[in-house]
Amino acid sequence: MNSKLVASLREAIGLAGLHDGMTISFHHHLRNGDHVLNMVLEEIAGLGIRELTVNASSIFDVHAPILEHIQNHVVTKLQCDYMAATVGRAVSQGILDTPVEFRTHGGRPRDIALGRTPIDVAFIAAPTADPMGNCSGKYGKSACGSLGYAFADARYAKKVVVITDNLVPYPLQDWSIPETDVDYVVTVDAIGDPKGIVSGTTRITRDPVGLVMASQAAQVIRHSGLLKDGFSFQTGAGGASLAAAKFLKDIMVAEGIQGSFGLGGITGYMVDMLRAGCFRSLLDVQCFDLQAVESIRDDPRHQEISAQHYAAPGDRSAVVDSLDVVILGATEIDTDFNVNVHTDSSGSIMGGSGGHSDTAAGAKLAMIIAPMFRARLPIITDHVTCISTPGRDIDVLVTQGGIAVNPNNTELQRRLSDAGLPLLDIRALKEKAEAITGKPRALPRGDRVIAQVFGREGQLQDVIYNVPQK
Amino acid sequence: MNSKLVASLREAIGLAGLHDGMTISFHHHLRNGDHVLNMVLEEIAGLGIRELTVNASSIFDVHAPILEHIQNHVVTKLQCDYMAATVGRAVSQGILDTPVEFRTHGGRPRDIALGRTPIDVAFIAAPTADPMGNCSGKYGKSACGSLGYAFADARYAKKVVVITDNLVPYPLQDWSIPETDVDYVVTVDAIGDPKGIVSGTTRITRDPVGLVMASQAAQVIRHSGLLKDGFSFQTGAGGASLAAAKFLKDIMVAEGIQGSFGLGGITGYMVDMLRAGCFRSLLDVQCFDLQAVESIRDDPRHQEISAQHYAAPGDRSAVVDSLDVVILGATEIDTDFNVNVHTDSSGSIMGGSGGHSDTAAGAKLAMIIAPMFRARLPIITDHVTCISTPGRDIDVLVTQGGIAVNPNNTELQRRLSDAGLPLLDIRALKEKAEAITGKPRALPRGDRVIAQVFGREGQLQDVIYNVPQK
Repeated sequence: MNSKLVASLREAIGLAGLHDGMTISFHHHLRNGDHVLNMVLEEIAGLGIRELTVNASSIFDVHAPILEHIQNHVVTKLQCDYMAATVGRAVSQGILDTPVEFRTHGGRPRDIALGRTPIDVAFIAAPTADPMGNCSGKYGKSACGSLGYAFADARYAKKVVVITDNLVPYPLQDWSIPETDVDYVVTVDAIGDPKGIVSGTTRITRDPVGLVMASQAAQVIRHSGLLKDGFSFQTGAGGASLAAAKFLKDIMVAEGIQGSFGLGGITGYMVDMLRAGCFRSLLDVQCFDLQAVESIRDDPRHQEISAQHYAAPGDRSAVVDSLDVVILGATEIDTDFNVNVHTDSSGSIMGGSGGHSDTAAGAKLAMIIAPMFRARLPIITDHVTCISTPGRDIDVLVTQGGIAVNPNNTELQRRLSDAGLPLLDIRALKEKAEAITGKPRALPRGDRVIAQVFGREGQLQDVIYNVPQK
Repeated sequence: MNSKLVASLREAIGLAGLHDGMTISFHHHLRNGDHVLNMVLEEIAGLGIRELTVNASSIFDVHAPILEHIQNHVVTKLQCDYMAATVGRAVSQGILDTPVEFRTHGGRPRDIALGRTPIDVAFIAAPTADPMGNCSGKYGKSACGSLGYAFADARYAKKVVVITDNLVPYPLQDWSIPETDVDYVVTVDAIGDPKGIVSGTTRITRDPVGLVMASQAAQVIRHSGLLKDGFSFQTGAGGASLAAAKFLKDIMVAEGIQGSFGLGGITGYMVDMLRAGCFRSLLDVQCFDLQAVESIRDDPRHQEISAQHYAAPGDRSAVVDSLDVVILGATEIDTDFNVNVHTDSSGSIMGGSGGHSDTAAGAKLAMIIAPMFRARLPIITDHVTCISTPGRDIDVLVTQGGIAVNPNNTELQRRLSDAGLPLLDIRALKEKAEAITGKPRALPRGDRVIAQVFGREGQLQDVIYNVPQK
């Protein structure tokens, strides 16, 4: 029987020819339940290979063991689109000699495809695979749904290792990544912890502030001129964003509006909208919860897309170019509407653009939902600590204290004003918040660049400095 | 609304930057009903563009107008995997100054991917498309099912024009080729004639000679040691091959054998085998009939595959590498088991390898079914006019007069002998035929090379000479 199965991960690493100084890649569909990045790095460390670049679509808290490999110089450079706080804090304290390279979910596959960030060996965490490497995220005990972020890694890496805990007979019927992209297949006991891979369906917020923002957000969309047949929509998985989606669904159902597609990381709330007839299809680059995983497996209207198809900039197109409305978050937004989603209130890394910049650039209406302040720190500042998404791509900020429209979008300004929504200049909104919280002190900032933020078109958009230790 | 729609095919050709000396490409899923190749060449001729190379996965009789464009030097070179007799005859008579380049269905996408045969502008005949270029062959009045041969063209061509007669709202839900590969979309009244695109289900042969061969073929497979759970199978659409599939199905159902997959150009007979439980899935690069088109649209076990995934040689894998048995045809086979499917009894081009060489190389058992003679010309010769598939890849020849096993396959020889099947040395089979037909005269052959036949690994395998005019 023809097979690409090898006896162990260690053997696959050897066959792939991995050696010092190379770049390896990972995708993050197993989210905070992922075992694969850690097990691969442990094997590599055991083999004595050093000075690797890790290109991971996202790095989660579960990946904290990478810090030890950084200290031991097994890993000397990171490239990612998102980095959770545990690793982010260590990076912000200066654990790496080389700055982290942040990209967007669309910029990452574009740079891989163009050879700007070549990958030597890609490791694909595959919830189901056959012995020739055809693989899928839809089936198996570690099912995660879409494998959209991994497509570019599989297609363009010099060597591709599929790691699975559910090997099925050839051929896997409903593959996402074809055997033509795969060199080796390894079976392990568990590629992840199902509890961390997908949550149960996230509950919408019950927080009164969140509900006010969500309701206002739905009204902004209703009056934007975009909510009509053919409407398309993306939202994040935060409580207020999901509440906004729920309010939006109620409006669409009541008014009989038939949208075209829901996009993005998909939650059960988007699945509910599909089933309620709000969309003809869902285009899914990542499943956030079990309901989304079941839907992408069973409902042909719910389709997997690659990160390139989702969001890559270039001379052809991606779905974000056809998107009407996206709801996004922010840790900071400044009076030029620049948004920070990379660093927290201490300036320490705890996020990243993901699809933030891509969808903001593509969507006709890019909305930020954020409270006026968090833990008595105002959200609106004069200058964000880090420009994750440039203000030119943001159309409106919705807070519990009022709505600020980017003055560049005069049509939206007029429409929302005509609808009687509570509009304020973003500077007035900033003052309103500061009247409650007081003016925050300037952040202490180090003088060493510990991260570079590349905009989705590939340009160096901003840098992040180290956080001085107390 | 975002859109890649352009007003006319002429405008798309202009925007794509087509100029003298470039290469354009086509795929053949619309078969003898295709209008697209002809309409594109007519526009190009009208624009005064000349000296083009046409890389078409196959050229059918419906494409006869290309001969006029060759005479007018609009087209000066052809690359294809198959060429039907109308154009083949003119090529054999020397209409082109440059030899035709024949490749296999697997070699063609490999050479496109490697940049050996770069495509400047690919024209994709799409039975359904949306305004951003997501397209499918499964839906619309010109539905053809799989678009498998077009994937490489779409992915690697510098510019890609989708031509459709069924434009649907964005996003097309179940796309085959994504918008990320597409530059322009053009709508036309009809991309093809449904009567020529897919036939009704082909009837199995009722010819007694064909039925004898089919029955023997099924017995060879039964006793090959391969017909067991997990069995995989491909067959052509000829009457005797289909009859063999029917006999095979009866055996599999009676014996409760559950195969793994059916592969290739798919007919209703393969769909029947899927439904009867003979296979877990069908992997489909091209639909031959309406039943196959309906099945690939409606049955998730029936999956579209790209030509690369189907058959491309290389360092990873294609499905043919996992294939157990393929049934193939021949216009000639020689005593070294070399097979000719390129030329007819006069030496004139009337075919091509298609997937013949790819499946023969990949399959554990590659079987030729052919009558001992056609129109009193024996099939077995000392040396085939053209080596389409090398004899080392052919395991057995089944005729109505006996079965000849390639002596290299001693295990098959033993198994079939043990089963009591009527085995003969291929030389004895040749003599048996010639005892009936007499020894044929040698073919008159010209001295000019009018075609090059590249083996699937990319090497020049044989050449075809012109046919002297009487």
